Amino acid sequence: MKSKYISPFKPKQIKDFNPKNMQIYTFNAGFKKKELDLLIINFRRPVPISVVYSKTSTPSGPIIWDKINNKGSCKILIVNSGNANAHTGIKGLKNIDHYTNLTSKIFKCKKNQILVSSTGVIGEQLDSNKICKKLNLVSSSTPKKILSAAKSIMTTDTFPKIAIEKIIDNKNKILIYGIAKGSGMIAPNMGTMLAYIFIETALSKNILKKLLKENIDSTFNSITVDGDTSTNDTVALFATGEKKIKEKISKKSISKISTALHKVMTKLSYNIVTDGEGISKLIEINVINAKTKNQANRVAFSIGESMLVKTAIAGSDANWGRVVMAIGKADKYITQKKIIIKFDKFIVSKNGCKNPKINNSKLNKYMKNRIIKIEVNLNLGKHNKKVWSSDLTHDYININADYRS
Amino acid sequence: MKSKYISPFKPKQIKDFNPKNMQIYTFNAGFKKKELDLLIINFRRPVPISVVYSKTSTPSGPIIWDKINNKGSCKILIVNSGNANAHTGIKGLKNIDHYTNLTSKIFKCKKNQILVSSTGVIGEQLDSNKICKKLNLVSSSTPKKILSAAKSIMTTDTFPKIAIEKIIDNKNKILIYGIAKGSGMIAPNMGTMLAYIFIETALSKNILKKLLKENIDSTFNSITVDGDTSTNDTVALFATGEKKIKEKISKKSISKISTALHKVMTKLSYNIVTDGEGISKLIEINVINAKTKNQANRVAFSIGESMLVKTAIAGSDANWGRVVMAIGKADKYITQKKIIIKFDKFIVSKNGCKNPKINNSKLNKYMKNRIIKIEVNLNLGKHNKKVWSSDLTHDYININADYRS
Repeated sequence: MKSKYISPFKPKQIKDFNPKNMQIYTFNAGFKKKELDLLIINFRRPVPISVVYSKTSTPSGPIIWDKINNKGSCKILIVNSGNANAHTGIKGLKNIDHYTNLTSKIFKCKKNQILVSSTGVIGEQLDSNKICKKLNLVSSSTPKKILSAAKSIMTTDTFPKIAIEKIIDNKNKILIYGIAKGSGMIAPNMGTMLAYIFIETALSKNILKKLLKENIDSTFNSITVDGDTSTNDTVALFATGEKKIKEKISKKSISKISTALHKVMTKLSYNIVTDGEGISKLIEINVINAKTKNQANRVAFSIGESMLVKTAIAGSDANWGRVVMAIGKADKYITQKKIIIKFDKFIVSKNGCKNPKINNSKLNKYMKNRIIKIEVNLNLGKHNKKVWSSDLTHDYININADYRS
Repeated sequence: MKSKYISPFKPKQIKDFNPKNMQIYTFNAGFKKKELDLLIINFRRPVPISVVYSKTSTPSGPIIWDKINNKGSCKILIVNSGNANAHTGIKGLKNIDHYTNLTSKIFKCKKNQILVSSTGVIGEQLDSNKICKKLNLVSSSTPKKILSAAKSIMTTDTFPKIAIEKIIDNKNKILIYGIAKGSGMIAPNMGTMLAYIFIETALSKNILKKLLKENIDSTFNSITVDGDTSTNDTVALFATGEKKIKEKISKKSISKISTALHKVMTKLSYNIVTDGEGISKLIEINVINAKTKNQANRVAFSIGESMLVKTAIAGSDANWGRVVMAIGKADKYITQKKIIIKFDKFIVSKNGCKNPKINNSKLNKYMKNRIIKIEVNLNLGKHNKKVWSSDLTHDYININADYRS
């Protein structure tokens, strides 16, 4: 946390705006020293939601609490950063009860209309009084814009993450936007990742569920920073439209929304991985023509998570031999001589060996780029997988070797 | 390779000796600039061997060649470092044919009595002439001792690895000793690891196979440096005794040999992991009372391979929350509240949360040690797994970010 590292992918400018049908409040509640660490969103009315949680078997208090309590509707969203409330046992859940009881009173909603998340250090009890104090201040506070919300959920992130898309459906403008945070413990099945995405239209929770399911694999579940899956990951989708929910929305409309939603989720995923702890380069791995979907996934993540590949890329070293290694360890059913490996447009290996015609000076020049593309053609079938990964640098170690201190 | 890093675990003294019934030759063949990079061992007669290879699906030339050619007997062992001859296709195999043909002539042995290994950079064709030149010099060279053999197979190793044990069986002294090299791409199912272990007695290849099988899981397959499995790993066991092989050796004798062999293999594994690239601390992970063997393995390696755990240990940070994370992502069938986590004798977590009675000043003092012991009691069954891992430091990145340059 003391590291002065800033991602080279940090956007020069992040557009701020005022989301509809919700009031955003952000505070420093004292989990962090000075920065914002508490987000409270008050929706105009309870809105349908769909949520996906970390697949860990050691989930955090908020995940356990949400799964028990929330029934697919949300009036109040509360997110704190700086304390994960993870591995905190019964007391951790009681602390959530404490601040959600107060929330329920203040905002006159049911407890099952509250969604909570936490992110930060694992294993420390969360002081719920810190949240309660700020809950009591909401009515006298001025609502904030989206940028403040994005900032308030950051941990080791070096920039706030916001994405927005606009579609026109039956002459109605629909905005879809979201905020997210990374940036360590990012891995498939979601690392320490929180993302909240809002669709400014009326959709049922079942449609939200479908939309989330069909878009999450190729977005949030296709990025990796360190292969580590967090205890707290949560991706939530909210339908914040004012109109009455129509269960029978046209397929065409859903498809339009899904496409735009995919863009928002892709952008947020990109933001998370390009703010991966200590990143200096983004690695885009495309595994093509795998025999099965599973094989494509395994090979792509094996490359994306290999410390040797990640350090090679950090050193601008076109060390494709380590890619071979990562392919070999990932799956039994590989045919070595069929593999074709490309770095961008450069074929570095084919027919089971080095391509003798590599233009090394051009390749080495390419390796100095900020984004490195690795394509692995397994030539065994028709399944593809794209994964984004960050490289492994000294800054990663600086950030993580004394995160708690 | 340019890094000036030296493992803090480097032994002050390494005892050299003259192995029986074999002649050791070492050379600089030109794969490295100046250091020894070629080992040739000429056994007095073809000796029974048993070999275990990397489980990768992209094996190196030598592994493919050995599997095709070698039939469990060895007259000549040839190992080069500095070039892995991996992912080199048909040409890679032809290059091995070239130098083994010459070997066969010079030493008057069959090709199937030769065992070859290579270690180093992946993807570059091996210049077999470099090996042939030295093969021609063997007859006029002076045999070396074991230390020179251990040195000649090193790559990023910072010290040579030798272990020796002595047993008395039926009043006969039997020596068991071996050499090994690491030190990146170390992972279960063997990373870039070569180990050659010699038992100075007469044993059949079937007994050697049994001995290797029963000892490898708790030794070479219980260490991890970076979770990466190499294309070239080979562990070979040789019975170099002079007496005639007795198929019916007593169970008691085998058991004695197995125990001593286990010590040698443990010592070599320890040497490999404590020379893991960039290591500053050794992490010993003990997962106890798992429901299944598989669960114990998965949890132990999940902790040992977690970049976040490894960097925390490097920073002397008792960040047991990351251990919780690594447990959670490893296995679905964990009962969170049953987990007890200890750092050495300090219970840091139990009943699904932090142990409030931790003596933090004593714990923090402990974390500055060179060896950090983490015990995870899953309280679900009776299966245990011990894994050794290295921490993740700046030196790892220094070593790997420009290995080829």
